[in-house]
Amino acid sequence: MALDDANWFTEVCDEGGTAFSLRIREKLHEEQSDYQHIAIYETETFGRLMVIDGFIMLTDRDNFLYHEMMSHPALYTHPAPRRVLIIGGGDCGTLREVLKHPEVERADQVEIDERVTQLAEEYFPTLTDANDDERAGLHFGDGIEWVRRSEDNSIDVIIVDSTDPIGPAEGLFDVAFYQECARALSSGGIFVQQSESPLYHTRLLGEIHNGLREAGFLDVLSLHFPQPVYPSGWWSATMARTDDLIGEPREDDIRDRPFTTQYYNYGTHMGALAAPEFFYRSLNGG
Amino acid sequence: MALDDANWFTEVCDEGGTAFSLRIREKLHEEQSDYQHIAIYETETFGRLMVIDGFIMLTDRDNFLYHEMMSHPALYTHPAPRRVLIIGGGDCGTLREVLKHPEVERADQVEIDERVTQLAEEYFPTLTDANDDERAGLHFGDGIEWVRRSEDNSIDVIIVDSTDPIGPAEGLFDVAFYQECARALSSGGIFVQQSESPLYHTRLLGEIHNGLREAGFLDVLSLHFPQPVYPSGWWSATMARTDDLIGEPREDDIRDRPFTTQYYNYGTHMGALAAPEFFYRSLNGG
Repeated sequence: MALDDANWFTEVCDEGGTAFSLRIREKLHEEQSDYQHIAIYETETFGRLMVIDGFIMLTDRDNFLYHEMMSHPALYTHPAPRRVLIIGGGDCGTLREVLKHPEVERADQVEIDERVTQLAEEYFPTLTDANDDERAGLHFGDGIEWVRRSEDNSIDVIIVDSTDPIGPAEGLFDVAFYQECARALSSGGIFVQQSESPLYHTRLLGEIHNGLREAGFLDVLSLHFPQPVYPSGWWSATMARTDDLIGEPREDDIRDRPFTTQYYNYGTHMGALAAPEFFYRSLNGG
Repeated sequence: MALDDANWFTEVCDEGGTAFSLRIREKLHEEQSDYQHIAIYETETFGRLMVIDGFIMLTDRDNFLYHEMMSHPALYTHPAPRRVLIIGGGDCGTLREVLKHPEVERADQVEIDERVTQLAEEYFPTLTDANDDERAGLHFGDGIEWVRRSEDNSIDVIIVDSTDPIGPAEGLFDVAFYQECARALSSGGIFVQQSESPLYHTRLLGEIHNGLREAGFLDVLSLHFPQPVYPSGWWSATMARTDDLIGEPREDDIRDRPFTTQYYNYGTHMGALAAPEFFYRSLNGG
């Protein structure tokens, strides 16, 4: 059946040759910010939906998958994550998950577009409910510049929670940026970046792995997890460490975590690290 | 953007409030069989596509996920799977994976609609290339009746590779059918059934778990895996055993398997068994 624009929001994924649609009730908001086009919809079954430049960013219903997997695996891999930097992440969902960790003393978020955060506060209040935590620092500006100005060995975990590697986020997938991250990370520091679909963006994932190694990261691993509203319904985050193997996560702390999750636990953490055969072969030139 | 019917095949998922579309080049075939409406398309990026009653059954590009996860976890959980029964599975992709296991002496497939298999042979020849294996038995008829007529303790692994639990496949989700399966399974026997989306069909999954336990299965576990062309892009299979805990799979045999896979390996097997928090809570009434 043909889908009309009045009742559906549709995102076409050209590289996948696919499209994904959500049934909508109404458009709640639309604007052109200084950086991008932002729209908010009320959907029939996924709660609210944020769209940037025509690409689905998040919905109420399934953002837990992405936000939990962008934060908890990295934080539970680091032995004692005290200083966290989030690049992008303007909807504040990753920040909220990061601040659930009692070890975190400071979480700075550097989002380029303040309007994303203002709209999240208005339309997705559950995502921003940790913004007034005294450990949180909300900054609006260039994340690459922020890392460049950071002191050596000053950050324990860097989370790159960006849009796709086109437009404003392109520089976040460069070796030069990775080198600055490696420099700014402390001993044992963990870097993690959203890294697109394992099925559609296998080549990009290879480039991310190679770029991180070229920038001096010693160990690089991708996490795989479901994300229904993103192209292919399957997404990844790529984790890296400069000075040693990434190693095992803190299993006991994960099992005794003092907060609730909807997807994340020790099993799904380890499961996300299990590379499918085709992915493993692709990274090894097979 | 609106998607036209000339260039896209679109499946609407009412319970999800979502739709998934594949860009198509042409419709290759269409017919009303004795049981259902079957259509075959050539897509732009997913190879060929089979659609039954408007629901996507499989594509060339991503069927490996479903077929590998419907077969290898069950077969590597059973200590010595010699006699395998597949209910449904008319495209023969699951049968092909089953026959990769050298321990299998006999694999019977009971599909209700012979046209599905004939069309698979014509349009998806890579899926049917094991059909002339002398261990394979292709039967066309009622799978429920086949199990009812099977002797006690005569089957090692039963794989229910069916369409959704509406229409012809409805009886395959009944306690009465599960009881017959439990009776027909040998000691150590493993049952596995496709069990829909973990996100959209959480209640159905609970009913499947309860139904299997009511029918006498002692242990029931669901496997979760990506499946881009199915609703939510995330799918499940549910495995059960009558006489003991399901237990660990044969890790050494998995690692030394004498065939190639695209998704399946020991890591993805164990990862698929890791239940997301919300799923675990749902099954436990949380």
